Amino acid sequence: MDRATAFVPGHITGFFSVQSAAKPAQSGSLGAGITLTDGVEVTVTPGSGCRLNGEVTSVTAVDSVRSRLGVEAAVDATTPLPLGAGFGVSGALALGTALAANAVFDCGKSENELITMAHCAEVEAGTGLGDVVAQARGGLPIRIDPGSPSHGRLDGVAARPRIEYITFGEVSTETVLAGDTDDLTRAGESALSHLLERPTLSRFMTASREFADDAGLVTEEVATAIDAVAEVDGDSGDDMDSSAAMAMLGNTVFATGMGLSAAGYDAQQCRVDAGGARLCDS
Amino acid sequence: MDRATAFVPGHITGFFSVQSAAKPAQSGSLGAGITLTDGVEVTVTPGSGCRLNGEVTSVTAVDSVRSRLGVEAAVDATTPLPLGAGFGVSGALALGTALAANAVFDCGKSENELITMAHCAEVEAGTGLGDVVAQARGGLPIRIDPGSPSHGRLDGVAARPRIEYITFGEVSTETVLAGDTDDLTRAGESALSHLLERPTLSRFMTASREFADDAGLVTEEVATAIDAVAEVDGDSGDDMDSSAAMAMLGNTVFATGMGLSAAGYDAQQCRVDAGGARLCDS
Repeated sequence: MDRATAFVPGHITGFFSVQSAAKPAQSGSLGAGITLTDGVEVTVTPGSGCRLNGEVTSVTAVDSVRSRLGVEAAVDATTPLPLGAGFGVSGALALGTALAANAVFDCGKSENELITMAHCAEVEAGTGLGDVVAQARGGLPIRIDPGSPSHGRLDGVAARPRIEYITFGEVSTETVLAGDTDDLTRAGESALSHLLERPTLSRFMTASREFADDAGLVTEEVATAIDAVAEVDGDSGDDMDSSAAMAMLGNTVFATGMGLSAAGYDAQQCRVDAGGARLCDS
Repeated sequence: MDRATAFVPGHITGFFSVQSAAKPAQSGSLGAGITLTDGVEVTVTPGSGCRLNGEVTSVTAVDSVRSRLGVEAAVDATTPLPLGAGFGVSGALALGTALAANAVFDCGKSENELITMAHCAEVEAGTGLGDVVAQARGGLPIRIDPGSPSHGRLDGVAARPRIEYITFGEVSTETVLAGDTDDLTRAGESALSHLLERPTLSRFMTASREFADDAGLVTEEVATAIDAVAEVDGDSGDDMDSSAAMAMLGNTVFATGMGLSAAGYDAQQCRVDAGGARLCDS
């Protein structure tokens, strides 16, 4: 095969707690999030370099995946998602590169091995802790044990609502994760307990809002948007009132249903991605 | 919500070994298979009864799921798949009922809880051991630890080829699973070791053919079709020679690429399902 393309959904984390271990495969995060039908398409061919939406870029986790697979691969990726805003684009690039390069170079790795490679690459690069395993699963993943597939374990909220999102700028994942994460961890573990009592969509949104408040990460634009959604009826026909929360880690608000549009925001619309990361039809 | 629909992919097992335990949640099978874009759409509304392709039917595993959820649900399912021929239709009905009924009746169960319910319902009914967890994952699932999500563990072959299939009649899963399964188990464990050495699509097909031979389950029609595919070039552009194997447990042959058509069979065509069981857009 001289070319393969993988699709990896975007992933918004609603809440999380950092779980560090000596080995990257055992490190990660607990928490829950939403994978999106808006994602990253990663095409691999023999060659070198990395392009994102046509521009040459350098992504440490992508370099690491190529090196782990021992391949000389050119990576050409496109995405409608904003960068550096809490959508897991770097994790998607790493995982998409792993899936597509394995196909092109006939590396003979299993899905779990490829997920593990991308997860470890992200953890070592400091650019993410839980996006890759969530993006591999799809849906609304709950990370109940941290780490790669041999160590971690996932569950999921059984729902598939419409999603809207809007971003107000960048937040550096590296800066937040490199700081004191004790408060984040306490807030994240509390939110996870709250969700697991009753793992529904509305509980996920409530737990996410509480986490953002407790962790002290809410920006003014985010607070204004969340409040605005709470005051409108954004029911999309999914039989659920709209509600909004903050994407971790990004200056970004996401909402179920059509709440952001109803509140007058120029929001992107998509759905929950049900399938998780996958090779595309050749 | 007064109605919800779930899609569950068909699942062909290539090889397996029976893994019995005292509790249904820990029982199951090891093995590997292929999930199909041809599957079962299950619509649930408040009510009673079960219809499949318009005909009233009774499925023990579906009754069991309704009872476990404590709901009065009418189940209306459609599928292009042949029945009793090794496509996991009973598992799909159980899992689809669990996913859709949870949405309609707001039961607040997580994905893993719903998968566990459907898995236990199938195991207790004696109609399947590994279809439900495979159908929940999608792709080409490898069952590396048996049982429901709290106990079992899956991996997957990272490929998504075209698939053709043809069935020559029914085989009773209950009869085979109720008989002496020691030979099956030895052959299945050997096939799994063979696949895990190099988890690729071609290795999966080889291991599946060897299993069917070793287990002594190959019918005359199946042997003729597998041989016929081996003699033609059914490359579908997926960069892989076509090859065929037998579906467990069914008088059914499946092939990668277009091998059955090329050999003159009037085969059904579909692809590997990448997403696994999911609620459909409302």
